[in-house]
Amino acid sequence: MKTELWYTEKQTPNLALSCKISNILHTEKTPYQELSVIDTVEWGRMLLLDGVVMTTEKDEFVYHEMISHVALNTHPNPQKVLVIGGGDGGTIRECVKHAQVEKAVLCEIDERVIWASKEYFPGIAAALFGHPKVEIRVGDGIKFVQECNAEFDVIIIDSTDPVGPGVGLFQPEFYQNVHKALKPEGIMVAQTESPFVNAGLIRRLFRDISGIFPVTKLYLATVPTYPTGLWSFTLGSKVYDPTDVAVSRIPEPDTKYYSSLVHRNAFVLPKFVQAILEPR
Amino acid sequence: MKTELWYTEKQTPNLALSCKISNILHTEKTPYQELSVIDTVEWGRMLLLDGVVMTTEKDEFVYHEMISHVALNTHPNPQKVLVIGGGDGGTIRECVKHAQVEKAVLCEIDERVIWASKEYFPGIAAALFGHPKVEIRVGDGIKFVQECNAEFDVIIIDSTDPVGPGVGLFQPEFYQNVHKALKPEGIMVAQTESPFVNAGLIRRLFRDISGIFPVTKLYLATVPTYPTGLWSFTLGSKVYDPTDVAVSRIPEPDTKYYSSLVHRNAFVLPKFVQAILEPR
Repeated sequence: MKTELWYTEKQTPNLALSCKISNILHTEKTPYQELSVIDTVEWGRMLLLDGVVMTTEKDEFVYHEMISHVALNTHPNPQKVLVIGGGDGGTIRECVKHAQVEKAVLCEIDERVIWASKEYFPGIAAALFGHPKVEIRVGDGIKFVQECNAEFDVIIIDSTDPVGPGVGLFQPEFYQNVHKALKPEGIMVAQTESPFVNAGLIRRLFRDISGIFPVTKLYLATVPTYPTGLWSFTLGSKVYDPTDVAVSRIPEPDTKYYSSLVHRNAFVLPKFVQAILEPR
Repeated sequence: MKTELWYTEKQTPNLALSCKISNILHTEKTPYQELSVIDTVEWGRMLLLDGVVMTTEKDEFVYHEMISHVALNTHPNPQKVLVIGGGDGGTIRECVKHAQVEKAVLCEIDERVIWASKEYFPGIAAALFGHPKVEIRVGDGIKFVQECNAEFDVIIIDSTDPVGPGVGLFQPEFYQNVHKALKPEGIMVAQTESPFVNAGLIRRLFRDISGIFPVTKLYLATVPTYPTGLWSFTLGSKVYDPTDVAVSRIPEPDTKYYSSLVHRNAFVLPKFVQAILEPR
């Protein structure tokens, strides 16, 4: 084809990522956001919400494995897990790989995301087709955690960026409710954007979560289709320290990025990232 | 300014990175390549060769620190260092931070790169203004190493991509000559592109270098302005293993990314990267 079609995401006001596309499969305005599914040549099929890359077939494994397995392998017995957001199902697909996980609840506000993922990304949505461990709730994660008390071992906040429907998932009141919804040995983890372009946000979230959870740690992974490629996750834990987990105790799950050594090393931060977290 | 000007690099035939620019400072056709200097809003000043990002003010520290300090801290006494390419001076600036380095030779084929860096990137080019440890040679690095015998403790191959003037720096004959140019305990390191989009190249280079150096290791860093953000370096060593260096033995240099723990951590590869290196 001589006519090249490209999708461009303005990742910041001053930075854009563009991907050559071969097909536009779906686009709709849901009650919450604009949802698009496109086929890209470099990253395979891609899910966009409000014009922002949520996930792609070829690099989704990094984000989904790293947001899930670190907390799940830090908790000695993560029986009951909650994923807030993450309607594509990639995170919950990783959760149910854990033998100890008995129940994984997905709380996604936009049922059209779940629909689109099942329709167009069956590999990512694999655990959304009636998996015995999975319960799907369509609703507001903020309200849901308000009503939960000491119910979950692990809560994963698999949100969009802190704009639009995701904004409440970056507030201290929300983390307070997450703390309340966790059992006494519970662990939360949230995606917290890029150290290169979101340093102020990361600093604030780390301070907020540190004020609520006695153990708070930041870790990193490289997600090519997210702004700058360097992506942070902030983990808050009531008891267990993710950097104290014996590597030998971590099972080697069926993964492409995460491993027991990657777990340990994800917490080793480049000096400029460490500096973001230091009190000023 | 309402008129937005953007620079776009087609990083692969199917992937592009764009940066809003505030100024075009310089552009010329040198005998070897097209050289441009632009001011971008997100990454500060940027050096382009043949339309490809070489370095930017804001993220240069990652690449320059990681291509230098890993080998320099693996060798117990790196007195004499050679940098091939790297005419911007960022790599040699890192080399001369080491107390043990007595002489650092820069061999850059294109003197206009050296000129442009001194003119527009004085911070990156800091060691090119008559530093007592630095010797600048304008010439072909391939020919230069052919003529060297057991001269250097560390050789750093700070090349462009394997197209245009950089292509010969990715050939096994070149690595043979680098081996010959190194002392009996010498170490080489080369930038070897992205595991996400250059897996075949990385596999071939790792095999080539493994055939010449008894210790060959790949390590990673996240460089936002390079394709996919995930960047690999391949280190070949005659004696010393970079993963065996005692963390406590590594001094903490004046860096923003590299640290003794980052040194160790950089060799822990995500499983899909490890898989690229496994014999098939």
